[in-house]
Amino acid sequence: MPDLVFHDTPRFPRGFRCASRLVGLKSSGKDLALFVSDVDAAAAAVFTRNHFPGAPVIVGRETIRGGRLRAVVVNSKVSNVATGARGIDDARRMAGAAAAEIGTTADRVLVSSTGVIGVRLPIEKIEAGLRGIAHDLQDDPLVGAAGIMTTDTHPKALSASVGGATITWVAKGSGMIEPNMATMLAYIFTDARIDRATLDRMLRGAVRDSFNMLSVDTDTSTSDTCAILANGHAGAIQIADLEQTLIGGCVRMTEILARDGEGASHLLRATARGAANDEDARRVAKSLVNSPLVKTMVHGADPNVGRLLMAVGKCFDCTIRPESTDVWINGHQVVRGGARVDFEDAAVRDALRADVIDLEVDLGIGTASARAYGCDLTKGYIEENAAYYSS
Amino acid sequence: MPDLVFHDTPRFPRGFRCASRLVGLKSSGKDLALFVSDVDAAAAAVFTRNHFPGAPVIVGRETIRGGRLRAVVVNSKVSNVATGARGIDDARRMAGAAAAEIGTTADRVLVSSTGVIGVRLPIEKIEAGLRGIAHDLQDDPLVGAAGIMTTDTHPKALSASVGGATITWVAKGSGMIEPNMATMLAYIFTDARIDRATLDRMLRGAVRDSFNMLSVDTDTSTSDTCAILANGHAGAIQIADLEQTLIGGCVRMTEILARDGEGASHLLRATARGAANDEDARRVAKSLVNSPLVKTMVHGADPNVGRLLMAVGKCFDCTIRPESTDVWINGHQVVRGGARVDFEDAAVRDALRADVIDLEVDLGIGTASARAYGCDLTKGYIEENAAYYSS
Repeated sequence: MPDLVFHDTPRFPRGFRCASRLVGLKSSGKDLALFVSDVDAAAAAVFTRNHFPGAPVIVGRETIRGGRLRAVVVNSKVSNVATGARGIDDARRMAGAAAAEIGTTADRVLVSSTGVIGVRLPIEKIEAGLRGIAHDLQDDPLVGAAGIMTTDTHPKALSASVGGATITWVAKGSGMIEPNMATMLAYIFTDARIDRATLDRMLRGAVRDSFNMLSVDTDTSTSDTCAILANGHAGAIQIADLEQTLIGGCVRMTEILARDGEGASHLLRATARGAANDEDARRVAKSLVNSPLVKTMVHGADPNVGRLLMAVGKCFDCTIRPESTDVWINGHQVVRGGARVDFEDAAVRDALRADVIDLEVDLGIGTASARAYGCDLTKGYIEENAAYYSS
Repeated sequence: MPDLVFHDTPRFPRGFRCASRLVGLKSSGKDLALFVSDVDAAAAAVFTRNHFPGAPVIVGRETIRGGRLRAVVVNSKVSNVATGARGIDDARRMAGAAAAEIGTTADRVLVSSTGVIGVRLPIEKIEAGLRGIAHDLQDDPLVGAAGIMTTDTHPKALSASVGGATITWVAKGSGMIEPNMATMLAYIFTDARIDRATLDRMLRGAVRDSFNMLSVDTDTSTSDTCAILANGHAGAIQIADLEQTLIGGCVRMTEILARDGEGASHLLRATARGAANDEDARRVAKSLVNSPLVKTMVHGADPNVGRLLMAVGKCFDCTIRPESTDVWINGHQVVRGGARVDFEDAAVRDALRADVIDLEVDLGIGTASARAYGCDLTKGYIEENAAYYSS
């Protein structure tokens, strides 16, 4: 297949449009978004593994069993989590209100909410705010992306062509982001024609090596949702091409989310190779992007490379041999056979000032590899999170 | 047994003394400490589980097999980790130099090093610095505690009487502190007479519920060491009393280490009860003290209580039922049956300003419980760790 090239300006596949509004949950910006297909689309979704899923996740799991969606409606500011039976009712009302606007039924509308946990959803404001929203629908995915932001510093959308079809990714990050998945809402739209079972399998595979390898702060949200809608307008596409493009876009969106992690000033990528098995590779890569001491090292551009060994070594259940462990920072080898290489300090310090920091570990055991995505840890993270609720 | 009362001023059991010096590894303060018993003491020790143990840990595991110690010698500033075969030689030379000063052999001296990883130990400075140190030995444990500090803001020592014996704890914290164990050096001295096997069992039990439940930043050091020396001068002591006092002192020292975590302004204690089993209780308690979002919430005194559910809920492999989950912050119930209680915001906000923050979770499943110890996450942590190596 050809190289994956993203469009300069993200656009929707045929038949998809979106709108966003400020309905009074936030004091400025947008707080509500609606994504619509003009016909029922085959759909699949994955959700958080947190034991306290939000009401929209509980309802969404039910909705997605139908395998068909016409729309996704999302609000930011209040996540409708830990709100009991009333929260479930509110999520259903939100689906119903969106469905009424576009002439479908609530079981064709996926609902997501993101924001503060444990506060009742202002459902009346949302219902009022949805009235007439169908008239606002437009072709720019960034309009919808703006409606789902919390602490994101910019709206996030990407699109790419594959055969005669288009895939578009719209997502938000920024904190409470770890595996399984990031607090993250990601919606993927395509006009490729594909059956629901294949779509589900493709989505799970793509999420596994992208969003599920993202960690901003080890904290797993109660609202994580990633859904894909395929409305078929472009007909059938080579499945392998579609799959590769889907994975490529999910990885790129993962990088965008990591780079925009709360307070982040660097994208941190950690690759573990030479692992005994896939699970070991994933754990080691994750351990590197999750270590506060590695993250502050990157923030400070300070080549305290021992911390990298520490982060590898604390994967207690993995097969690790110090004498076969090599480590590189942006191509500079800093550890060989488990011992620090006498590297040129200034060169590595300089490399650590790049926008993207690649940490690579070769465990020298087997052939498995994995890559994880994260960001540095800065005072900005503390600032944003010491008073998030009140702000 | 009577209540555990610590002495107002920490003191040593009979036959123990210590000294500390500045030998040129740091530019000021102390960087070398020696703890000595006047006779061989029964000894036990536990070490880090990190796959990249420092040279002193590799040598120490060998030394402790002998079950007898006369002394512990510790340097700060350089950890002698990831230094290859030369590091092992350096650790042995350090033991030998200390042994020569006090008239014993290297196999009776436990060595620890703490500080930067991957830098060669300045062994000549240490050897020169140890010369004549036996003349400096004195009765004040805080003198030795001062020699093992890295980013600790104060030297840490405690002592308590049990029957006719004394137990003294000397330790250092402050970052790269997680389970199994904190980056943490802790030395425990007693004049109780006790056989080595019992001492080993008692130490492991005490560490399990204290130092192993401490986490400042989820990062597990490559140098962690906790050793106990019992020289017998006070004769035999009721074993149950000795054990209770040992545990009590280890827990208190754990709290002191947590409170002095890098940048910390609060001691954070998380208790999980009503868990299906001990492992679940430990995981949930640990998850709470490790969550950056819980830690920043405590720092900001911001009752964003949904984060507590998030942190409980991300223990994927634990048995958790939202509908039976209750949560308290310093005695104020904030969650009942998995949903936010309509608590008085000002009161909880006020409670979060206390020096000690107790988070309690009742999972409502079984009868197991556990407590974990940590601290809040502040800009001070970022400051200390973004440039630790260079400073």
